[in-house]
Amino acid sequence: MPVNLSAPQAADLHPVAGVRIGVAEAGVRKANRKDLTVFLLDEGTTVAGVFTQNRFCAAPVQVCREHLAAGAGIRAMVINTGNANAGTGADGLARARATCEALAGQLGLAAGQVLPFSTGVIMEPLPHERIVAALPAALSNAQPGHWARAAEGIMTTDTLPKAFSRQLQIAGATVSVTGISKGAGMIRPNMATMLGFLATDACIAPALVQQLVRELADQSFNRVTIDGDTSTNDSFVLMATHRAAHAPITTLDSAEGRALKAALLAVAQQLAQAIVRDGEGATKFITVRVEGGKTGEECRQVAYAIAHSPLVKTAFFASDPNLGRILAAVGYAGIADLDQTLIDLYLDEVHVAVRGGRNPAYREEDGQRVMKQQEITVRVLLGRGAAADQVWTCDLSHDYVTINADYRS
Amino acid sequence: MPVNLSAPQAADLHPVAGVRIGVAEAGVRKANRKDLTVFLLDEGTTVAGVFTQNRFCAAPVQVCREHLAAGAGIRAMVINTGNANAGTGADGLARARATCEALAGQLGLAAGQVLPFSTGVIMEPLPHERIVAALPAALSNAQPGHWARAAEGIMTTDTLPKAFSRQLQIAGATVSVTGISKGAGMIRPNMATMLGFLATDACIAPALVQQLVRELADQSFNRVTIDGDTSTNDSFVLMATHRAAHAPITTLDSAEGRALKAALLAVAQQLAQAIVRDGEGATKFITVRVEGGKTGEECRQVAYAIAHSPLVKTAFFASDPNLGRILAAVGYAGIADLDQTLIDLYLDEVHVAVRGGRNPAYREEDGQRVMKQQEITVRVLLGRGAAADQVWTCDLSHDYVTINADYRS
Repeated sequence: MPVNLSAPQAADLHPVAGVRIGVAEAGVRKANRKDLTVFLLDEGTTVAGVFTQNRFCAAPVQVCREHLAAGAGIRAMVINTGNANAGTGADGLARARATCEALAGQLGLAAGQVLPFSTGVIMEPLPHERIVAALPAALSNAQPGHWARAAEGIMTTDTLPKAFSRQLQIAGATVSVTGISKGAGMIRPNMATMLGFLATDACIAPALVQQLVRELADQSFNRVTIDGDTSTNDSFVLMATHRAAHAPITTLDSAEGRALKAALLAVAQQLAQAIVRDGEGATKFITVRVEGGKTGEECRQVAYAIAHSPLVKTAFFASDPNLGRILAAVGYAGIADLDQTLIDLYLDEVHVAVRGGRNPAYREEDGQRVMKQQEITVRVLLGRGAAADQVWTCDLSHDYVTINADYRS
Repeated sequence: MPVNLSAPQAADLHPVAGVRIGVAEAGVRKANRKDLTVFLLDEGTTVAGVFTQNRFCAAPVQVCREHLAAGAGIRAMVINTGNANAGTGADGLARARATCEALAGQLGLAAGQVLPFSTGVIMEPLPHERIVAALPAALSNAQPGHWARAAEGIMTTDTLPKAFSRQLQIAGATVSVTGISKGAGMIRPNMATMLGFLATDACIAPALVQQLVRELADQSFNRVTIDGDTSTNDSFVLMATHRAAHAPITTLDSAEGRALKAALLAVAQQLAQAIVRDGEGATKFITVRVEGGKTGEECRQVAYAIAHSPLVKTAFFASDPNLGRILAAVGYAGIADLDQTLIDLYLDEVHVAVRGGRNPAYREEDGQRVMKQQEITVRVLLGRGAAADQVWTCDLSHDYVTINADYRS
């Protein structure tokens, strides 16, 4: 059961001028499911992406990097679910390229203008001929209003599609920001998430798009974790079609630039948090905030140690305030000169530990009350400096084991 | 259900001359269970230990380090289960010291000659007055033959006591090596395990004992992981009573030194592996061996990434050869210049992946056959150098979640 997350309503998702989306059934892994999504982008659209740091990165990730670097102007994206085309060697690369060539051929583009994305099981050959065969069906239903369908078409173990949208005014013009994401397991993005696509028709200098995609990823997808498993296929793409009727934004340090970034970040964080809310087996949504560090990096290190601890995660699942497990995770997070006598721990507003020991005023029933909530903030004060950072995660439940013990069957 | 592990028979455990053990019921956390163990060591015994690197190290670990550094000659150890006395601040330190003082008083020793050990729940006050009250009962039954009782007396979520023993001949004299360990969750030792005690009556230069304890820990307890949670209380202690009737061993580079070290290491590895075999919810015992690395350190880094991946561990639980998950873990292990096209993967003798892709000769039924076994070796060839290392771990099952969601109740 996802934590405070419901399916997006198509009517709530603003189309983005210059973006059309088609969805079809290719039968990549299972019959009778929408598993193929095609994005068509108007000429002049700027596309930037960040991708997994996993050294076993998937074939489509390698092709995306090549095509983005070549700079021929991305005009289409093809996304399949059911097969990740990762751990597939040279053969997998050939199949990813063949898919791009087929789509380019039908659109009168060069193959380098197409980005491929795959998600699903690893180390099995991609049945790209099925994808190629279904491309005409996807192209024939391409519409600006198909964001909700696309969110559904990229799902794997997700229980709900994930899509968010908003509009803002820039210099009197209405600008739309709409995005989708997927992912529920193998989630500890490093530079990006499993799959995230965010589009805007804002008119913005192309150089800013690459800067934005990194900054947005760092404050959204790069701050969530479900199981600590960094995927082979993480990809986050930002598309700017420049179609809105306002003067181009040339710096993010302007009122317009800040407003646009805030809107993009709000949607990116909703998309990233939606992945945690729909995390495999998740019953709780946990914010782990670490303050008082010397650097943001060490705050993240501690936050991830807590967020990845199976003992902490099972305690949340049980609503058991066995909070010493959090202190243990802080202690092994890898900060060599950490002084335990400076550390305080809060669960929401409840002051659990003071100076490394149990707060004499702490009462078990207060911890119990917070642990029973669906949304909980763990706050650790390191007492070493002024830096802070946070990550979002979920608990570890029986359903996580069930889902991942049954994933391929 | 432990994996290929049965309870030790008291008759199989050789007493170690110079060591007596008493066990009693102190009611630390639950009534009617043996939760207090006292070791009494003859004068002249050399004791060396390695302890957790967790910065939130428990009060008894801090006291152990102090007392070993002071060098007054350790003559007794007091071990309680049910409460870890960790995350307890200055108050916890005072309680650990009070326990040492009480035992020292009854034995006519200085407090600095006693080492305290605690294991159990974190961040709750240690009821040391109950421990002190039960010391006379423990002392009154102290016997050389109580190793099996001690193994039982230090258990927490362990389902079986863990004790191993062997004898060897050194220069015509019979030397005994006997040890016990405990731990089933919060296991990813860093320098030592939850609790491990190993004794020998071999006659060996005291300086070698400290060297040995580190080398033994590095090749046994420091190579096992259950859930990646490095405990606050990990302690591994080596006791040498020097009582055997052979000339002192003054170097480990002699035939006698090598024979003794081999016997000690054999028992230490049995103790460490027993912790994994009895890992919380474990149904499989997995050896993860990484070869062809540039350094042992990077081999361990990859081995631990595989051993800690919840996705890999649940696949083992399900006997599902979803082996791409292993490649994904190799990829995110943190080796920046890893070349995926050089990597091979074996499951026992089955060649699963070749040069980063699925081996064309690999058949799913072969992977399936190995995955169904209770003992499995994962072998990864990095193709970068000549270094190798291995770790031992278990799968992640429903019972792990159940046990840790219920631990305190």
